[in-house]
Amino acid sequence: MMNFDITSLYLVNPCPLDDACYARSMHASSILDHALVFSSFEDAIKDLDLLVATSSIDTVSEKKHLRNPMFLNDFAKQIYDVDGRVGLLFGREDYGLLNDEIAICDIMVKIPTSEQYHSMNLSHAVGILLYQLYIERTEMPVKRRNLDQVEKTHLYDAFKMLLESINYPVHKREKTTVMFKRMMTRSMPSKWEYHTFMGVIRTAAKRCDEKKER
Amino acid sequence: MMNFDITSLYLVNPCPLDDACYARSMHASSILDHALVFSSFEDAIKDLDLLVATSSIDTVSEKKHLRNPMFLNDFAKQIYDVDGRVGLLFGREDYGLLNDEIAICDIMVKIPTSEQYHSMNLSHAVGILLYQLYIERTEMPVKRRNLDQVEKTHLYDAFKMLLESINYPVHKREKTTVMFKRMMTRSMPSKWEYHTFMGVIRTAAKRCDEKKER
Repeated sequence: MMNFDITSLYLVNPCPLDDACYARSMHASSILDHALVFSSFEDAIKDLDLLVATSSIDTVSEKKHLRNPMFLNDFAKQIYDVDGRVGLLFGREDYGLLNDEIAICDIMVKIPTSEQYHSMNLSHAVGILLYQLYIERTEMPVKRRNLDQVEKTHLYDAFKMLLESINYPVHKREKTTVMFKRMMTRSMPSKWEYHTFMGVIRTAAKRCDEKKER
Repeated sequence: MMNFDITSLYLVNPCPLDDACYARSMHASSILDHALVFSSFEDAIKDLDLLVATSSIDTVSEKKHLRNPMFLNDFAKQIYDVDGRVGLLFGREDYGLLNDEIAICDIMVKIPTSEQYHSMNLSHAVGILLYQLYIERTEMPVKRRNLDQVEKTHLYDAFKMLLESINYPVHKREKTTVMFKRMMTRSMPSKWEYHTFMGVIRTAAKRCDEKKER
């Protein structure tokens, strides 16, 4: 939960929150500290506006409308349009959610899984669901970027100098420079990678020139 | 792994694959049966064409190019263009991958996580990575579908009959029918849901007509 900035944990009739629980929570113990404990399902859902049942079990028959699910990736795209408090409901590790509990929910969400092995470990299901919601609402920092015009000019000039200094066949230089441009564009170097690489190319060009002069 | 149709497990100097391992693997013990065990990292990666290091730890400094990562969601979009055997490399639960191991890898992939708490449990990291790759390569069965023309005509006719039978204001009928169409389109009912709902509307219309006649 803390990996994906989700902090509000409701527990219905949980096991005692003992030392073992806290040890397992690692650096996320504050979530346990603030968990709300309820003695009944009905009490737990009172302040929630949209209830989402989760399952990795699908049913073949369309008649089993109770478990007719929406896929997680589609759900993640739409859920942020909902105005109100959304509750994600996970069942017991051993037998999941009861049909009565699912019936109360507004929608059922399914994590897409292999035909060979549907059933997922509870904590994996929680992790994957929260991950999918996280990447849907989080703008990823753009670590990759295009080179700006000045950087490009310097880099390609340095590369042309290198070709010259190694006596690269004149009629092939243009084509090879274009190839180099394409490769650089695809590699999307960071500022640091750019400067390091520039250094290598410039030094190489200089050394080759020196050798030519000898 | 079996939840997401990944079967090839390489282990480097693992703990003994004892009864506890098999008990935890639940119905995926065949993956353990077929796991390849290596005594060195170098042996394990010999037949792999592209090595992918994984981490949830990011570095602020761009200079730490060793750990300059690509985000999982971007990686999942591009990895299927690679021709060859791809190895996804996960480190130890306690201290992850060593810098030497990361240096050998062709790319580093990061699972986007909260600024507050980067570090993930190993098994969650594996689960989330395999999930993201799975949904990228799997065409989801379309459980939702649009109503076909015949179904639409029948449904909207039935709805108009209902409006008529309840003496709905004539000047509002057109607008309300359009609203009903919009709602039905958004709800994307299954065949079974469609027929059930049609039954309700037709029966309601009929009953209201009977009452009017009395």
